[in-house]
Amino acid sequence: MTFLRYGFSSEQAAAAADVLLYADLHGLDSHGVCNLLPIYVKALSDRSILPSSTLRRVRKKGAISTFDASGMLGLLAAKGAMEAAIELAAEHSVGAVTVMNSSHFGTAGYFARMAAQSGMIGLALTNLGNRPVGYAQGSRRAIIGTNPLGFASPAGDLPSFVLDMSTTVVASGKIKLAKDLGEEVPVGWMVNQSGQPVTDPNSYLEGSGLLVPLGGWQRSTGGHKGLGLSLLVEVLSGVLSGASVSLGFEDEQNSIGHFLFALDVSAFLEGSIFAERMERFLSSLLGEPVFEGHEALTYPGHSDAKIALERGVHGIPLPAPTVAALNWHASTLGAVSLAEIGQ
Amino acid sequence: MTFLRYGFSSEQAAAAADVLLYADLHGLDSHGVCNLLPIYVKALSDRSILPSSTLRRVRKKGAISTFDASGMLGLLAAKGAMEAAIELAAEHSVGAVTVMNSSHFGTAGYFARMAAQSGMIGLALTNLGNRPVGYAQGSRRAIIGTNPLGFASPAGDLPSFVLDMSTTVVASGKIKLAKDLGEEVPVGWMVNQSGQPVTDPNSYLEGSGLLVPLGGWQRSTGGHKGLGLSLLVEVLSGVLSGASVSLGFEDEQNSIGHFLFALDVSAFLEGSIFAERMERFLSSLLGEPVFEGHEALTYPGHSDAKIALERGVHGIPLPAPTVAALNWHASTLGAVSLAEIGQ
Repeated sequence: MTFLRYGFSSEQAAAAADVLLYADLHGLDSHGVCNLLPIYVKALSDRSILPSSTLRRVRKKGAISTFDASGMLGLLAAKGAMEAAIELAAEHSVGAVTVMNSSHFGTAGYFARMAAQSGMIGLALTNLGNRPVGYAQGSRRAIIGTNPLGFASPAGDLPSFVLDMSTTVVASGKIKLAKDLGEEVPVGWMVNQSGQPVTDPNSYLEGSGLLVPLGGWQRSTGGHKGLGLSLLVEVLSGVLSGASVSLGFEDEQNSIGHFLFALDVSAFLEGSIFAERMERFLSSLLGEPVFEGHEALTYPGHSDAKIALERGVHGIPLPAPTVAALNWHASTLGAVSLAEIGQ
Repeated sequence: MTFLRYGFSSEQAAAAADVLLYADLHGLDSHGVCNLLPIYVKALSDRSILPSSTLRRVRKKGAISTFDASGMLGLLAAKGAMEAAIELAAEHSVGAVTVMNSSHFGTAGYFARMAAQSGMIGLALTNLGNRPVGYAQGSRRAIIGTNPLGFASPAGDLPSFVLDMSTTVVASGKIKLAKDLGEEVPVGWMVNQSGQPVTDPNSYLEGSGLLVPLGGWQRSTGGHKGLGLSLLVEVLSGVLSGASVSLGFEDEQNSIGHFLFALDVSAFLEGSIFAERMERFLSSLLGEPVFEGHEALTYPGHSDAKIALERGVHGIPLPAPTVAALNWHASTLGAVSLAEIGQ
């Protein structure tokens, strides 16, 4: 409804809504409809996202392509680009694609999972353009993005393996969610501009709280590895794509970049061998004994699939501020409110 | 000398030594000559590494190849496989290669850097076969490998970007190095089999200390992300390659697997554009102000290159137990000891 209002076709609107609902359904609450207003409607209103733009292929050489999204909605640009990567991989066994001039693409796992659903291994990366939010050991200001990584693989009869993670200690959406829920965030997520830990989610939104890389802000706990992973994502999705980059590109109008990769497992192993090996590995992991009081071991994608089954039946719990904002928005569109549909 | 003694050609011996010396020269002390005796000579002696084996291409389809190393020295198998990936990328813009039946390949960054030296972006992954050493949240025993990741990119006139990291909080070699230096390891590197932190490096070697994933052993600090990255490496280098996998494959003779990937940046961006963008990004990072008392910011590969310059002039400092072991080994070969060459 929202996307239709801003001039998208019904097919485009459905595709964009599918990415957001995937996140809510699978328990990735920080990347679902809660972002509709603060990210997508905001950018559509100020015309930093342009509904009429389409994905234009700039280069094609062997198993790679590069695309210019010309200010498209990232949710649609990344979907189109992953379709292109899958097509390249069907022909060349692997396919790699970059996108420039795009915008926030939602949850990385959605696009990686598209490859898994085609029997391929998929990788989806994005930078944040020239809008860094994260701290690097000793920096006086934010200089890195959350730079997430989505990686997916088919797993035979088990739910697909879907790793969906920011390379910061948490995704920024988790801090916004804590604010909506009226909670503090744990020590270890943010430091202030003197390098001291802070736990007030408002400090992040005000700009005084800096997100820490995966591994923390010390070398002994591997903070340099989290920073390294963030830079890896920046090189592939920012530098290589031609988009804006988190440092040194402050003078540009912001352009977000993505990197999408697909790999056809059937080129590597005959028939069902890969599926059988994945099942043997992951079912051993699921069956591994744990300490008393610990939850059973799981793998990325497995617990999401369980949550999706449950939410498919019982519905998706949304925080009150998200519901209130969406209902206000629905009233401006003359649409039915969530309360009337029932939560 | 050692490799020659075990029947390698002089070319093979020089290539293998080059991988180990690269690590020592660049400050990656846990992956250099200190491993010569405990890993390589040990495996050559018990014939779990076979000097006469060669890298056999099993499949080739489009931009991918798969190889069987038949018990080769991992240092040589991974080098040959990265050469194949670079060749594929020269033809198809990207190239992906798996290797099975290999052994410990040393430092992942060495192979990724081979791609950077050919003007490409490179990725090198390895698993540990069915010999897990790492803890997953709640597990009663080691079930994951250190599963390292090497990623490299050319950076114009700056030293190449080379990220070289285990997906555990540290590489296991760092614990062995602490033992040789007679030091405790920091809290946060290991837990015992009741899930409590331990700092004695001997507990790791005795099997009672379990290495923790990057991000620690708690979800709130991102331990599930480190575990996810370890599993990602396991899927590509273990499951996809046909090698042994850390869980569910205990009944096999151990076979280590690698995944090598190369991507030709010139297919994505014209001429020197990529190099200029990398320089603009990384020189901004190097010039970023830091807090008083903090070391200047750096990027992966930059500080290694500085160490290599310094060690190239002043020599490589080795811990006393490594020197003693190598000298004892040299005497068995009738070779000159390190003390005589001068440290």
